[in-house]
Amino acid sequence: MRIALAQVDPTVGDLSGNAALTAAWVEKAVVAGADMVVFPELVICGYPPEDLVLRDYFLADCRQALLEVAESCQNLVAVVGTPLREDGMIYNAAAIIWNRQVVGWYRKIILPDYAGFDEKRYFTPGENAVVVEIGGTRVGLTIAEDLEGSGAAAVGGLSERAEVIVNLAMSPYYRGRGRVREEKLAERARSLGTWVCWVNGVGGQDDLVFDGHSLVFDPQGGLRARAPQFEEALLLVDVHPQAGSRLHRGLPVTESRTVNVIAVHPDGSNDAGSLPAKPAVPPPSLSPDLAQPLSPEAEVYSALCLGVRDYIRKNRFEQVVLGISGGLDSALTACIAVDALGADEVHMVSMPSRYSSKGTKNDARETAKRLGAKYYEIPIEPIYTSYLDCLAPFLDSDTSGVTEQNIQARIRGNLLMALSNQFGWLVLTTGNKSETAVGYTTLYGDMAGGFAVLKDVPKTLVYRLADYRNALGPGGGPIPESTIRRPPSAELAPDQTDQDTLPPYELLDEIVEAYVVRDESPDELAVLGSDRALVRRVVGMIDGSEHKRRQGPPGVRISPKGFGKDRQLPITNRYRK
Amino acid sequence: MRIALAQVDPTVGDLSGNAALTAAWVEKAVVAGADMVVFPELVICGYPPEDLVLRDYFLADCRQALLEVAESCQNLVAVVGTPLREDGMIYNAAAIIWNRQVVGWYRKIILPDYAGFDEKRYFTPGENAVVVEIGGTRVGLTIAEDLEGSGAAAVGGLSERAEVIVNLAMSPYYRGRGRVREEKLAERARSLGTWVCWVNGVGGQDDLVFDGHSLVFDPQGGLRARAPQFEEALLLVDVHPQAGSRLHRGLPVTESRTVNVIAVHPDGSNDAGSLPAKPAVPPPSLSPDLAQPLSPEAEVYSALCLGVRDYIRKNRFEQVVLGISGGLDSALTACIAVDALGADEVHMVSMPSRYSSKGTKNDARETAKRLGAKYYEIPIEPIYTSYLDCLAPFLDSDTSGVTEQNIQARIRGNLLMALSNQFGWLVLTTGNKSETAVGYTTLYGDMAGGFAVLKDVPKTLVYRLADYRNALGPGGGPIPESTIRRPPSAELAPDQTDQDTLPPYELLDEIVEAYVVRDESPDELAVLGSDRALVRRVVGMIDGSEHKRRQGPPGVRISPKGFGKDRQLPITNRYRK
Repeated sequence: MRIALAQVDPTVGDLSGNAALTAAWVEKAVVAGADMVVFPELVICGYPPEDLVLRDYFLADCRQALLEVAESCQNLVAVVGTPLREDGMIYNAAAIIWNRQVVGWYRKIILPDYAGFDEKRYFTPGENAVVVEIGGTRVGLTIAEDLEGSGAAAVGGLSERAEVIVNLAMSPYYRGRGRVREEKLAERARSLGTWVCWVNGVGGQDDLVFDGHSLVFDPQGGLRARAPQFEEALLLVDVHPQAGSRLHRGLPVTESRTVNVIAVHPDGSNDAGSLPAKPAVPPPSLSPDLAQPLSPEAEVYSALCLGVRDYIRKNRFEQVVLGISGGLDSALTACIAVDALGADEVHMVSMPSRYSSKGTKNDARETAKRLGAKYYEIPIEPIYTSYLDCLAPFLDSDTSGVTEQNIQARIRGNLLMALSNQFGWLVLTTGNKSETAVGYTTLYGDMAGGFAVLKDVPKTLVYRLADYRNALGPGGGPIPESTIRRPPSAELAPDQTDQDTLPPYELLDEIVEAYVVRDESPDELAVLGSDRALVRRVVGMIDGSEHKRRQGPPGVRISPKGFGKDRQLPITNRYRK
Repeated sequence: MRIALAQVDPTVGDLSGNAALTAAWVEKAVVAGADMVVFPELVICGYPPEDLVLRDYFLADCRQALLEVAESCQNLVAVVGTPLREDGMIYNAAAIIWNRQVVGWYRKIILPDYAGFDEKRYFTPGENAVVVEIGGTRVGLTIAEDLEGSGAAAVGGLSERAEVIVNLAMSPYYRGRGRVREEKLAERARSLGTWVCWVNGVGGQDDLVFDGHSLVFDPQGGLRARAPQFEEALLLVDVHPQAGSRLHRGLPVTESRTVNVIAVHPDGSNDAGSLPAKPAVPPPSLSPDLAQPLSPEAEVYSALCLGVRDYIRKNRFEQVVLGISGGLDSALTACIAVDALGADEVHMVSMPSRYSSKGTKNDARETAKRLGAKYYEIPIEPIYTSYLDCLAPFLDSDTSGVTEQNIQARIRGNLLMALSNQFGWLVLTTGNKSETAVGYTTLYGDMAGGFAVLKDVPKTLVYRLADYRNALGPGGGPIPESTIRRPPSAELAPDQTDQDTLPPYELLDEIVEAYVVRDESPDELAVLGSDRALVRRVVGMIDGSEHKRRQGPPGVRISPKGFGKDRQLPITNRYRK
């Protein structure tokens, strides 16, 4: 009994593309000799489809795409995630396909409704567990929270009867989530005494990156297989190898094999009359097939590259443009863009002002050169002067204030958008999470663009990622040492540095992590010792810049709680702790 | 038995302010001789509080604010909406206060999870109905969907036992919703055979406007009282007037009055042992107290004014600035701003370019003059020329393209934002729903600002509102006739009109209404006759500008489905019908 887990990258709404993708991986599974192939949650429509699934005609088109997939499913059982409309209800479902026919359905039971999830808005929960019996081996189906969630109701009815539980997931990435998953799923396999085959999708979708990392555990909780992160993969697992039922690679199963789909009801009864208890399943003697985990920095860097690549590709852009200042954030963004898309697709524009130092101007040019990207210089002084002239009746004689600083940032945003309009390049913004959190950004200025690469990357991690990327070379790497060592500055006023306005980034990032990601009370940010006034000031800045973040572009989430759907706060909000 | 419905305007997160507001209206109810005063849903924290209610410390502060309110509740029963944390669960609850004590709780049973609502993300549903017995009269409590929703489970347990059902609501406005509510609630009162007292909040909160319009129906479904829309009000109703138990205004009830809170369980049993069936209640012979409904245009105009006023006030701004072009959208926005805030608080800036006609420049000045608002002119030609010079290597020789058009719009956005930064004025944007829908707007240009007044107002309605406002005067009204009659144009290129790019607005608005608001399939837009190619083009423009709308500011929703939380679609979305 060989099960193939197809860790694929669907595109939201691209129903015919997703059907073709699914059919292609069915074929790979057939070639690999699989008896069963399992796809991620909602692979037919992509995840999350949001309000698209409230449209009847969209659901009808999903059904059509599923039937196209079924046509390709000869000689094996395919389990394919898709929305299902039935009797006026909508389910997050898995179609069971055998001999080109949909022979049964599983409907997700536990619907998540927290952080960025809102499945209760869309779906009716299923009621029955489902066992698929393939040539005598019984496989129980679950979708995402049905196995992973704290309720895990579906699993109750399966563990007595199924030797294998497969789980169709679309589980978004955050830093270190791999270890969390492995511990939880190992515990599930052990406590249920079943094989657990967890197949996750991969790819970027707006703020989310799905990292793959599909996993297989034996009934003792032993990790038997792990797919790589951030790329498509087919993970194979042979259950019962000692019992001699293992198929050899390339040998197809035949249509005469018996496949039964059996519903198990909440009261424990089942449609097969009396399904006998499952036999004890020993672990196989084969050695595990484990992709090596990535280092913490490599993992984040890969997530950012995949997020950028998929946003560009899935939105049918080809090239990007970004402003390169000679500072670290734009240098790292440039590296990610080039690594994600190739140097030929990346345009970098230096837009120096009267406040730009020689050092940053040189570093901007040098970074572009080392990366081999296209590079342009557009000094903003003439435009800036014309703004100051036109606004002279309204401005102070001292032109170093916030108004004038923002004018410079907005000129740069306009220039990049002009190039975007002229050539169809998508603008990447370069702001990091630390400054996004406290609003140390200019709306319509440095925030102007289609995708915010470092939106969820705190400044202290920007430094670590820069070192990581430089270590990959060639030579000392693309980011000049002087860019890394120079004190951060927006260079919008004379002799300005970030630390004129913000606390040291080590401290700022601790506060952001505690208040935003872990949702701790400002009164309880114990890590921060005695400086309660500072905590209050930073929390006030975070609360007071919600209106800015709402007008910012999407960007790759790498924490358990990013700005966006994970954290839904009113703009009009007078609450201050 | 006199019940007061307190139709008040709380502010999200302003717990001490809301407690003071609630206490002040308790006092008004006491002066009016009420036995019971009922406040809207979640009045203590404002609605919707979104993820604030996931914070333990916020819930603790809500509890504290409620106790402050309780201190003020002498001599009557107060029913106050507030979030309640209890045994690790969070409820959307109503506190029952008597003699300065919280003597009981009702927990909302039916939690909405559609359109802009996501209460299942936050709250656990309650289980028991609650009857409050006040001096022999039994009042059943419900919150919003408990009475209004299609399930309406809570009402089942109450209708046999309570003579009056009160409902705490925060029901957002849309055009014509008043009639829908009146029909539904009349039917509820009639079928239940009880009084129905529906109290709604009022005020603006980001995209939403709550319109008040609190209602009272007698047990025969007769409308006995209607509060005005868009303003705070205390609505009084005397039940049992014929039975002689009516209290006179100003006469306080005493502490010795008996108040019992009785839980009614799902199985029909109740904590009072055997609660007798309610007596038949005839309607009173008094004449009804009905605020006159507004005309369709007056209703929308009032909603827009309240939305602007509350967004400005609750976010602690005082003054606004807007670009006035001589076109109709900005003229109407200017009227709304002045009517909402007063002419002294509104700054209007004309920013003509080489493409601005003499007619529009004159009309801009004239509109500001008629409204008595502050008016400035900043010609953008010098700045525009400096952009063209700096970008010359990248631009075509023909400078009438989209790139150059957007540069002009963005210069104007920058100038308004510079004034905003310099003087603390909030920027109002002036784009209407028709152009927002199809993306006939410039990101960071005319979309730049804090609040989008006409975001949900289609162009055909803009015309009707302009006529409505002009009819109010003085004289022929603030909007010049030439502004209304001139063909709409963005004036960003020579001899440009909107209809070069867009279909006639009558047709465009029908498509937007059908596709966006009513969610009809593009294949089924029957109203549009045979021009399927046009429908496809418009729907494609709507689908293709999701990324723009996501970076736009909030604005007043006046339809059942606005752009925003009501309509959650992915940006990365290849689905096209």
